[in-house]
Amino acid sequence: MDKKTISRRHLLQTLPLGIVGLACNRSEADQKQEARSEEKFTWIASTTWSPHFPILGEGMDLFAEQVKIMSGGRLTIKVYGAGEIVPAFELFDAVSQGAIQIGHGASYYWAGKIPSAGFFCSTPFGLNAQQMNAWLIAGGGMALWEEIYAKYNIIPFACGNTGVQMGGWFRKEINSVADLQGLKMRMPGLGGKIISRAGASATQIVGGEIYTSLERGVIDGAEWIGPYHDYKMGFYQVAKYYYYPGWHETGSTLEMMINKTAFEKLPPDLREMVISAAARANAWMLAEFEAKNNFYLKKLVQEENVQLRKFPEDVLQTLKKATEEVIGEMIAADPISKKVYAHQTAFKKEILQWSEVSEKAILPYL
Amino acid sequence: MDKKTISRRHLLQTLPLGIVGLACNRSEADQKQEARSEEKFTWIASTTWSPHFPILGEGMDLFAEQVKIMSGGRLTIKVYGAGEIVPAFELFDAVSQGAIQIGHGASYYWAGKIPSAGFFCSTPFGLNAQQMNAWLIAGGGMALWEEIYAKYNIIPFACGNTGVQMGGWFRKEINSVADLQGLKMRMPGLGGKIISRAGASATQIVGGEIYTSLERGVIDGAEWIGPYHDYKMGFYQVAKYYYYPGWHETGSTLEMMINKTAFEKLPPDLREMVISAAARANAWMLAEFEAKNNFYLKKLVQEENVQLRKFPEDVLQTLKKATEEVIGEMIAADPISKKVYAHQTAFKKEILQWSEVSEKAILPYL
Repeated sequence: MDKKTISRRHLLQTLPLGIVGLACNRSEADQKQEARSEEKFTWIASTTWSPHFPILGEGMDLFAEQVKIMSGGRLTIKVYGAGEIVPAFELFDAVSQGAIQIGHGASYYWAGKIPSAGFFCSTPFGLNAQQMNAWLIAGGGMALWEEIYAKYNIIPFACGNTGVQMGGWFRKEINSVADLQGLKMRMPGLGGKIISRAGASATQIVGGEIYTSLERGVIDGAEWIGPYHDYKMGFYQVAKYYYYPGWHETGSTLEMMINKTAFEKLPPDLREMVISAAARANAWMLAEFEAKNNFYLKKLVQEENVQLRKFPEDVLQTLKKATEEVIGEMIAADPISKKVYAHQTAFKKEILQWSEVSEKAILPYL
Repeated sequence: MDKKTISRRHLLQTLPLGIVGLACNRSEADQKQEARSEEKFTWIASTTWSPHFPILGEGMDLFAEQVKIMSGGRLTIKVYGAGEIVPAFELFDAVSQGAIQIGHGASYYWAGKIPSAGFFCSTPFGLNAQQMNAWLIAGGGMALWEEIYAKYNIIPFACGNTGVQMGGWFRKEINSVADLQGLKMRMPGLGGKIISRAGASATQIVGGEIYTSLERGVIDGAEWIGPYHDYKMGFYQVAKYYYYPGWHETGSTLEMMINKTAFEKLPPDLREMVISAAARANAWMLAEFEAKNNFYLKKLVQEENVQLRKFPEDVLQTLKKATEEVIGEMIAADPISKKVYAHQTAFKKEILQWSEVSEKAILPYL
């Protein structure tokens, strides 16, 4: 690019008609609303994280603060951690029923209720963070997500991304697929089903109990998030092998769920503030993860003698094959999952082709 | 991750003190401002693009619309294209002097005035889009940028990113460094200096004149942006070889410049809306680029018989070496450039190390 103006004549010659027209997602009536309501709103937000949880909880605190400033105090959002007012398990229902207005967590937590929900957080061997954002924001993903959650009176928002996670902590080395056989691995959700298909035995263990479970040998391995959060949890004290890449969470989008009835009661200006602050939080959280992870990875390796390992090729290929099988069965059983997965997969094919000449092509030279 | 609550006790045991405390970038006095001013503001924004230019201009139109909705019409921003009221060349001065309130362009356009400015847009063989955002938002980059622009009474905002660009259009194949010798290449800025160091002859040509210059053989090659925008410009009609990767622009951040005096006249709520809408536009533009580029790349290759080529290894290595030389001379001559480049390079070293176990490690398996 350069700073010189492209002549308008030249552009008009080369641009197809319509390209300069902008679609706006607010109705004309909304846009004309200029008189401001003085009505004050107090909302409750609950998360699936501990209060002020690093990055994820902090991001929600910032979100609430920004909305408060933008609204001049007309929309106050009180943010609670998991279990303070709503147990993490019950967050979806609490927002759906309007008991609270906002929930912040990850959509794959609701896979028991809505099998397709997980695709909006993370698909194993799926999209990375930048690709997820492209799919959601500019590729039609958000519209699908909104359609699915609308039945539950919830409006979803992309609100944070972890980036590529780590593959997990292991007490012994994983040298081949043989080492996965019978391995007791703490891994929830789709990742757990997939690693079980590959021969391991996945278990669900509460975050706060992973450490002692590893320590006592109840489990042989566990995945959590990435270096920053894993360091805080102290896993390096009870497992020395730290594996990458996080094939099961390649760029997990966090979700903000808002009760639709509550949202629609807001005047248009407050709605737009919520949308904007969520988008800002979405980017802020990813930036924080990306900026902080290496510092803690180095601490783990240099100060705590953690052995950093890449999963062997046969393990990754076996897990990828198991992913296709498990998702294949899942979408055969649920038409909505089939629709979402097909949409995301079609987008993925395109963006990966673009990545071949962009991100993938340049990364080795940076 | 999972949805189970990490026990608060466990977190407090493992989290260092202070980690849960949140820094907020607004003063307490600002936060307490709840009574809203009814004062109306009308701002002028000018860009370095044609009016409603695909993605970049459209993003600014959306930005203005979102601020209008959030502010209930208290802050109206009229967006103009380059040359409509301010020539692209004069945008920095116009914002600096307060003739207009907002400018949208790319910081490397002002390298003649502020040599270090370019590092906030794109460093050849530098950071990709996700890494740039991490540096700016969470790595200290924004603070440096703000410090440098403050002398000019301008507050900068990251407002858009092109992602990895293409390497450019050529009339003949580039098979080795020998083919660069004497090659007349339209490439502005630092990229132009670097390719000249590698033996080519870089020229500056206005966007609207690239097509005819290529057609008449005045130049042998030209870079512009990427498949979406390049397709619109019709370059495929006059040059058949389309090279990747865009080593000179690996994730160019677009900038929004706001006159500091004007910004500080806004009440805190309007300021926060501007900050939030800029952050939203920053993400929206990148998502649009990522989602659209492959569609146009396929059209170019399949419908227009464009020959897609990767730069040969020796060309990329030669350009990388030339980059180090040219930037080395640049920072030797300008202490501020030295400071910014050192900061960015230190961050880059960390985030690339993280990329080795995250993005770079997973991309081949997606």
